Amino acid sequence: MIEAVRPCVDGGRFPVKRTVGERMDVTADVFADGHDALRAVLRWRVAGADAWCEAPMQAAGNDVWRGSAHLKVLGRYQYGVVAWIDPFLTWRRDMQKKLAAGVAESVDFAVGAAQLRAARPRATQAQAAVLGGCLASLDGADAAARGQAALDDDLAAVMAELDERPFAVTSDLLEVVVDPELARFSSWYEMFPRSCGRPGQHATFADLEKRLPYVAGMGFDVLYLPPIHPIGRVHRKGPNNAPEARPDDSGSPWAIGAQEGGHTAVHPALGSLEDFRSLVRAAKGHGLQIALDIAFQAAPDHPWVEEHPEWFRQRPDGTVQYAENPPKKYQDIYPFDFECAAWRELWSALRSVLEFWIAEGVRVFRVDNPHTKCFRFWEWCIGTLKQDHPELLFLSEAFTRPKLMHRLAKLGFTQSYTYFPWRNHKQETVAYFTELCESGVLEFMRPNHWPNTPDILTEFLQTGGRAGFEIRLLLAATLGASYGIYGPAFELAEARAVREGSEEYLDSEKYQLRHWDLDSGDSLRRLVTRLNRIRREHPPLQWDTGLRFHGTTTEELLCFSKTAPAGGEAILVVVNLDPHHAHSGHVELQLESLGIGADEQFQVHDLLSGARYLWRTGRNYVALDPAAAAGHVFVVRRHLRREQDFDYFL
Amino acid sequence: MIEAVRPCVDGGRFPVKRTVGERMDVTADVFADGHDALRAVLRWRVAGADAWCEAPMQAAGNDVWRGSAHLKVLGRYQYGVVAWIDPFLTWRRDMQKKLAAGVAESVDFAVGAAQLRAARPRATQAQAAVLGGCLASLDGADAAARGQAALDDDLAAVMAELDERPFAVTSDLLEVVVDPELARFSSWYEMFPRSCGRPGQHATFADLEKRLPYVAGMGFDVLYLPPIHPIGRVHRKGPNNAPEARPDDSGSPWAIGAQEGGHTAVHPALGSLEDFRSLVRAAKGHGLQIALDIAFQAAPDHPWVEEHPEWFRQRPDGTVQYAENPPKKYQDIYPFDFECAAWRELWSALRSVLEFWIAEGVRVFRVDNPHTKCFRFWEWCIGTLKQDHPELLFLSEAFTRPKLMHRLAKLGFTQSYTYFPWRNHKQETVAYFTELCESGVLEFMRPNHWPNTPDILTEFLQTGGRAGFEIRLLLAATLGASYGIYGPAFELAEARAVREGSEEYLDSEKYQLRHWDLDSGDSLRRLVTRLNRIRREHPPLQWDTGLRFHGTTTEELLCFSKTAPAGGEAILVVVNLDPHHAHSGHVELQLESLGIGADEQFQVHDLLSGARYLWRTGRNYVALDPAAAAGHVFVVRRHLRREQDFDYFL
Repeated sequence: MIEAVRPCVDGGRFPVKRTVGERMDVTADVFADGHDALRAVLRWRVAGADAWCEAPMQAAGNDVWRGSAHLKVLGRYQYGVVAWIDPFLTWRRDMQKKLAAGVAESVDFAVGAAQLRAARPRATQAQAAVLGGCLASLDGADAAARGQAALDDDLAAVMAELDERPFAVTSDLLEVVVDPELARFSSWYEMFPRSCGRPGQHATFADLEKRLPYVAGMGFDVLYLPPIHPIGRVHRKGPNNAPEARPDDSGSPWAIGAQEGGHTAVHPALGSLEDFRSLVRAAKGHGLQIALDIAFQAAPDHPWVEEHPEWFRQRPDGTVQYAENPPKKYQDIYPFDFECAAWRELWSALRSVLEFWIAEGVRVFRVDNPHTKCFRFWEWCIGTLKQDHPELLFLSEAFTRPKLMHRLAKLGFTQSYTYFPWRNHKQETVAYFTELCESGVLEFMRPNHWPNTPDILTEFLQTGGRAGFEIRLLLAATLGASYGIYGPAFELAEARAVREGSEEYLDSEKYQLRHWDLDSGDSLRRLVTRLNRIRREHPPLQWDTGLRFHGTTTEELLCFSKTAPAGGEAILVVVNLDPHHAHSGHVELQLESLGIGADEQFQVHDLLSGARYLWRTGRNYVALDPAAAAGHVFVVRRHLRREQDFDYFL
Repeated sequence: MIEAVRPCVDGGRFPVKRTVGERMDVTADVFADGHDALRAVLRWRVAGADAWCEAPMQAAGNDVWRGSAHLKVLGRYQYGVVAWIDPFLTWRRDMQKKLAAGVAESVDFAVGAAQLRAARPRATQAQAAVLGGCLASLDGADAAARGQAALDDDLAAVMAELDERPFAVTSDLLEVVVDPELARFSSWYEMFPRSCGRPGQHATFADLEKRLPYVAGMGFDVLYLPPIHPIGRVHRKGPNNAPEARPDDSGSPWAIGAQEGGHTAVHPALGSLEDFRSLVRAAKGHGLQIALDIAFQAAPDHPWVEEHPEWFRQRPDGTVQYAENPPKKYQDIYPFDFECAAWRELWSALRSVLEFWIAEGVRVFRVDNPHTKCFRFWEWCIGTLKQDHPELLFLSEAFTRPKLMHRLAKLGFTQSYTYFPWRNHKQETVAYFTELCESGVLEFMRPNHWPNTPDILTEFLQTGGRAGFEIRLLLAATLGASYGIYGPAFELAEARAVREGSEEYLDSEKYQLRHWDLDSGDSLRRLVTRLNRIRREHPPLQWDTGLRFHGTTTEELLCFSKTAPAGGEAILVVVNLDPHHAHSGHVELQLESLGIGADEQFQVHDLLSGARYLWRTGRNYVALDPAAAAGHVFVVRRHLRREQDFDYFL
């Protein structure tokens, strides 16, 4: 019997996720009736390949068996478990006991000899030599030689090779999607390209190229741009979401499509498609992936509205149904009707949009509100695109209920935005991250934590001052393997909301150009740079697994450690969650999770400040003043010089 | 999307279990992309039936929906969830918001009117009248009438009836086996029929008939008999498992088969098949089911050994392979080779054994060591037999590793022996029962707790004296809905082991006749009788669900409560686990699980002693001397007379 093969999502309906080069541990409950000795292997292959890779599984107690698959290339794999009864191993195990107890009889040896004879026709010459030698002893009258032959190690090895796996059972096949490392460990920077030029002027891709050193210099991997397409003019919104735009207002980039084109066109003010290609090339030169925003919706003057009225929901009065969230109305946005009669053509056209940008060298997409589009569309669209391009990365922007977020991740999205922006206090932070890490969600969903976005200026950031931004940055960059900021609003600590009780920015870049003073002395740029370097240099920060919270004696101090699956160093983070006051207290380390024994002394080295402290078992004191530093990011160093290390000890 | 339909065992590979008349609560995660209003129903039917029963499901928060199926008859059912988008409900919900905000436009009414028109061809005359009236209003110019029609309750009801379930999705079908109530709530008594006669004489079924009033009088439902077949003479064991039997030794009933016959024959000394039929009839008259022991193995002189040598494993020297657990050898037992070439004939013959006894009126079987027989055999055998006889009950005697025990339950066994005999201390008892009740195991496995069996005289019973037997009886009868004792050894507190460190009885009835003094003044018969009556009178003790442990300030006091799924009274049990000393301390009640508010006073009424105590919130004092009583079985009575209940309060 094979039961409970893990990892497994929804009984195998959806693949689990890993990144290239990882070793995936697989466990299964394997057992049989009776007392026969069992063997089990884990097998796996890239989907579509003929041959299986195999690795033996080991019994780990309580009928749980464990094996490991090395996932060497990108793509979708299948994996499963095969288990069977090994008659020779059974016989050998029983003979060991009988010989030890002195109750082995001639017929017992004959039972084994019969197995050897049955295996002989399958043997190579070398194997046959081993079989022949042992058979002679088993058939002979010399008791010592018989016993020795029965337990001969070479014989056991040959019989294992010749094993025909009788009564083999095979688990249902499961799947794992193997993504590039960037899917697991990434640092994102979002910015509006039109705002990076001279004050008051609509910037271009060429201006953005000049900004690349700034972004890359901070250590980001992904530069994510809001939609770069022509912006609709019908019902265009003005600054601060004003219902009417003035003639020279730029409009929202998410109102996609105008007479200049739709989802495969570039806004003329940004430049040409050739300029975009140049940007993508230049970004790569800086180690940056350009991420495009995929917002599958249309402005009323999007060319498809006229060309394909059948893709939109028509109202009885002949008008097109615009987006609504009653009683709110969004007349500047027409949703596509994913379930319309012409859905095949619509779905195909939408996938073509992605194919177009893939052909232009884009590999990373941030998908706008995927939960308001047909779920089956995403599974089909992402699934088929990744067949040819397993390196693609899709970030799901679904700030919605947990089960919908989870479903989108299961359907194929590579990363997902999270509730991180609204988890500020210790208890809620611990609860949320514990749920993410311990409920099995990480098998299919990779969180990407954003302290801010153009839609989300949290009350914490509005009220916390510069220290508030530091705290949120520190948490995002260390709690999660992937995080992002919307800049330069973030590093410049832009905190003004459009009005009390709103999370919208005042003078939001969504509706107007902004100009940012990147050289402000208050910029968090140096902290961002340092954190991103620490992230690159320390593997524990590159994984969402291995997170463990530790107790603190003060409600305002949060303490957690991270370790990488391969082991090695531990990172220990302590953050003062209160941006307004200094706090001090003790952290209560669960040392075994850091690989430290009960009586050991060790050094914690703050990678932010450079300070070093000698700590030991149990409680250690921490004082953090947000005016000076929001937290510590320690690497735990275990090698300390003791009296034994010096000559005079001898 | 429908996810996570519960209850569910291994993704639907195995059925869950319920008993007839129960309402099965089913939950599922149901959600859709976008913001459409959803509806969902639970549906179920007896497997093979054409028509589905349906019950609406209600959203219970966090996208979990809940419904309930009434399982009225015995047998195997299918169940599943259907969910769909309800366009009219969506429109009505949005219109409520638009009307409240004063933003409803003519086209909004026209959208709804179009839905009514589309539904009209499907309407009955009565429904059409409602549709027509509302349509007139919706199409009209009277704003108030339009708004009223949009939200009309009759219209909503008619549209729900005419709903065509667009985009309906259906979950995979799951199965539930509905057993008789006895499967859930049963009290078993095991005894050796040959020992119930006059001293030194092999008793008969006729003698056993005379013993029925004794067993039924104690309140048992099931009288379970070790094998009643002819006993092998070859390699027969003597008293206390002596390797050689003397000519007049009776042998072990589990060494089945001799020249007089095999699994469908009756031991001549017990009587004839007609005598057995008489016993079954008489037992029914006393409210007792006769349970037979099914031990699928053969003595060397079982007729099948000669008739069907192909059903046994032959050794190279031409002898039959006897049972082994190296280095131990059981030459008196030949196992069947379930994987032999003639397995179809063997399996069929073994199932015929059950069919034979079913035809003789037996409905309850205790299966000996099922984990050493082929698992697929059991799934096929029990599954096919229950198609015609859904009332059958199979108790699995598999004292083996947890995953094997669970698998046997999944494969079809109705009840299972448990590790209860070896859970004596508070912590291990709480841990074991919590695991049983909270891990989902109860969905497929029904525990049957035995403090002793002919194979198991635990160290606790060997050392605990009469009080030890009382404690174990009290726990078995109240922790579990099903329990059993092997008597008269149990009620007479037989505690002598064959030797130090063994759980075997001295002079075990497995190998010899015994005579018991049922009228001993020390018999636990009265306590057994009282406990079985309490079990019958108090529904909380008839369910394994609803068990909750409560804290005590003393390690030796165990406290737990039980409630039935339908609610009603609670039973509260306190047991002194130490048979040697009196203990006292406080129990710390989690009152909300008893349906009692924080400040309430209540009465606990000991159903064993008749004593009543006034208790209230928090800690209450208990003192238990095992010389007087091992524990309390309280019913919690909430109605107390307070000052308000008397005239003079006014």
